[in-house]
Amino acid sequence: MPRIQSVEAQDIRFPTSRQLDGSDAMNAAPDYSATYVTLRTDTGDALSGHGLSFTIGRGNEICVAAVNSLASRLEGRTLEEIIADMGAFWRDLTSGDSQLRWLGPEKGVIHLACSAMINAVWDLWAKHEGKPVWKLLADMTPEALVQCLDFRFVTDALTPAEAIALLKRQQAGKAEREAILRQQGYPGYTTSAGWLGYSEDKMRQLCREALDEGWQHFKQKVGGDIEEDRRRARILREEIGESRVLMMDANQMWDVDEAIVNMRRLAEFNPHWIEEPTSPDDILGHAEIRRRLAPIAVATGEHCHNRVMFKQLFQAGALDYCQLDAARLGGLNEVIVVLLLAAKYGIPVCPHGGGVGLCEYTQHISMFDYIAVSGSMEDRLLEYVDHLHEHFLDPVRIRQGRYLVPDAPGYGVSMKPDSLTAHRFPDGSAWQ
Amino acid sequence: MPRIQSVEAQDIRFPTSRQLDGSDAMNAAPDYSATYVTLRTDTGDALSGHGLSFTIGRGNEICVAAVNSLASRLEGRTLEEIIADMGAFWRDLTSGDSQLRWLGPEKGVIHLACSAMINAVWDLWAKHEGKPVWKLLADMTPEALVQCLDFRFVTDALTPAEAIALLKRQQAGKAEREAILRQQGYPGYTTSAGWLGYSEDKMRQLCREALDEGWQHFKQKVGGDIEEDRRRARILREEIGESRVLMMDANQMWDVDEAIVNMRRLAEFNPHWIEEPTSPDDILGHAEIRRRLAPIAVATGEHCHNRVMFKQLFQAGALDYCQLDAARLGGLNEVIVVLLLAAKYGIPVCPHGGGVGLCEYTQHISMFDYIAVSGSMEDRLLEYVDHLHEHFLDPVRIRQGRYLVPDAPGYGVSMKPDSLTAHRFPDGSAWQ
Repeated sequence: MPRIQSVEAQDIRFPTSRQLDGSDAMNAAPDYSATYVTLRTDTGDALSGHGLSFTIGRGNEICVAAVNSLASRLEGRTLEEIIADMGAFWRDLTSGDSQLRWLGPEKGVIHLACSAMINAVWDLWAKHEGKPVWKLLADMTPEALVQCLDFRFVTDALTPAEAIALLKRQQAGKAEREAILRQQGYPGYTTSAGWLGYSEDKMRQLCREALDEGWQHFKQKVGGDIEEDRRRARILREEIGESRVLMMDANQMWDVDEAIVNMRRLAEFNPHWIEEPTSPDDILGHAEIRRRLAPIAVATGEHCHNRVMFKQLFQAGALDYCQLDAARLGGLNEVIVVLLLAAKYGIPVCPHGGGVGLCEYTQHISMFDYIAVSGSMEDRLLEYVDHLHEHFLDPVRIRQGRYLVPDAPGYGVSMKPDSLTAHRFPDGSAWQ
Repeated sequence: MPRIQSVEAQDIRFPTSRQLDGSDAMNAAPDYSATYVTLRTDTGDALSGHGLSFTIGRGNEICVAAVNSLASRLEGRTLEEIIADMGAFWRDLTSGDSQLRWLGPEKGVIHLACSAMINAVWDLWAKHEGKPVWKLLADMTPEALVQCLDFRFVTDALTPAEAIALLKRQQAGKAEREAILRQQGYPGYTTSAGWLGYSEDKMRQLCREALDEGWQHFKQKVGGDIEEDRRRARILREEIGESRVLMMDANQMWDVDEAIVNMRRLAEFNPHWIEEPTSPDDILGHAEIRRRLAPIAVATGEHCHNRVMFKQLFQAGALDYCQLDAARLGGLNEVIVVLLLAAKYGIPVCPHGGGVGLCEYTQHISMFDYIAVSGSMEDRLLEYVDHLHEHFLDPVRIRQGRYLVPDAPGYGVSMKPDSLTAHRFPDGSAWQ
């Protein structure tokens, strides 16, 4: 088994703000970026692990610094000793150095850095096994899977024994669901047409292209001027018709009462959900908004920083859809804990996509969820944004609005060497 | 008025782990550290602003990197334009650069960095006015004070108009309370005897010294082995007797049910409160623990990362004492929002002290709270830890377990040049 010799973090940035790709009310001009981690092993170029954390530009250098500060906890370890007790490894990296833990705990920059490193370990493990991550997970026994997890601070909602029982419920149908998935893919929705910075013409054109491609679910960014939000909703409804699904995303722009007032003004456009209506930390605020806006659903999670926050969102009845973020939670281990909590509380998981590599990550999560955790694709969607996939060695593949099953070994975010070179900040050619 | 020409961040660390000062169940061997910010102005050495964020060692370099990433938002501004709309300035620094905001939002490393910078601005302002910060605040009108604050994401609990009304209630008695404070000081409690890494002999000796100094309130670290926690509680009770107050602090070591079980085993030692019984993010968990452990009180807040979390702790009835942290919240502006929320919900504020400079900060907060916000010292205590004060130009002064009113202009955390030189990491003499 390989030994990790060094942890390398690169500051990779794409100048997306030039076209206002990814623009929303809170994030006016993001430069989609990644703290890109490479675990180099004693196998040389034969086997290395890749993980990334998504940021939106400035500050990516701080995440790189945090990976460098954590690197010594990973360097020198063998994959064998890590996977012998993956749950203990996870706790050690996220909390084992109490001096570094102080910077969170389990949130913000330090957790983003842990996430990239932990996902790189999963990538290494899956590549070593010759399997895509979803398959590595789906093939584990419930007991083996639960041993990869840390239930600290969530045992009042879910114990390891309950988690094993949840997973055992789905054991029987796993092979059948894997076959269905290979045949049908996993349903997605597109955010590509709805960015706030796009002109009416561009929105209409992108809608038509998306309809041609077979998309049935569309997302609009709101949270700017309310009359402008209404105007853009009207345009989208004109293009997609009444039978297709329109979601809205406020990107945290509103206070609680403001969210309710504004969504009542947008209700005539029949939004399926309102996403991030207020502060991502406001569990009770989301619960209040959900109660007062029903039947409009509430979705949140891309900025939900750890399992403790998700636990409470579930306990408080604060959301209808869980939009966990593969690169903000502390890597795949914590993502799986959230999947299990969501299954226990009966909340569909629709992961946050877009950014850099998030779709490449999340396809593994949702497919594993379908095969082994929730056992269902009903009312579940993978977000899709059609940017930056060309920089990955194994980009997502979409047909008729559905994600095809990824077959390449690993966790999917290994980037092309040329893309890395060109987008290294600040010296890459894209930044000259 | 001075113009800020440059923002300088220094990595200052004290090797406290060598004596196990500050050791607790979660933080076994901290090296108390500070990201120390200096705002240099066009007045040269005549006037500069100082702020710091407290960390416990490794990772302090990441906070320094974050201050450097934020520096350009402050450089070139005049104090005049900042204080003309301090609330807008606050929102601009914490959220104005959406690329940097992504790293939180308003939590972890990026918020710690904002905190140090914002507090340095308050220090500059107070020095310019020739007043200690508590006096600068206490002398403001309610309207002027509220204009310094950002109510985003808390208006469902407290609006600016309500905040003004709250402050107006206390206007009449301000001069009288200031006189009382100058005469009596502000009551404190000591954590110095209770660190987990101390031997029985050292604990007993420190207790006796503290009793001689007039302390009436003591705090013990728990969260290790429960029998050991009981043994140490017995020692402390033997030393301080039954009439004095004993608090306990678990530093986040327990899950919800575990906290309840363990505190029932410690109840015979009559703890006044249990502090940080579980994850600092677990609002609903704290509420559950409080409900089931009553009449033992629940205290938390030193890791509570922003006003949105405190708002919910109050809304959920999750705590009896609010232990806000002057250097983890986004500077004094956000601290004041939390003071106002606490006053509205009737929760006493007992700020987190210790670390590097936290006592120097918090005396200003509690004294302002007494004069202008809550109007009460009853059931309120300032934490005191007797470490590292000798490094400050204007250290806290304690008499008979009470903080004396600080008179030096500023926010109190300006450090001695020799101390900075000796403790610069990694090149200072303390680290050779």
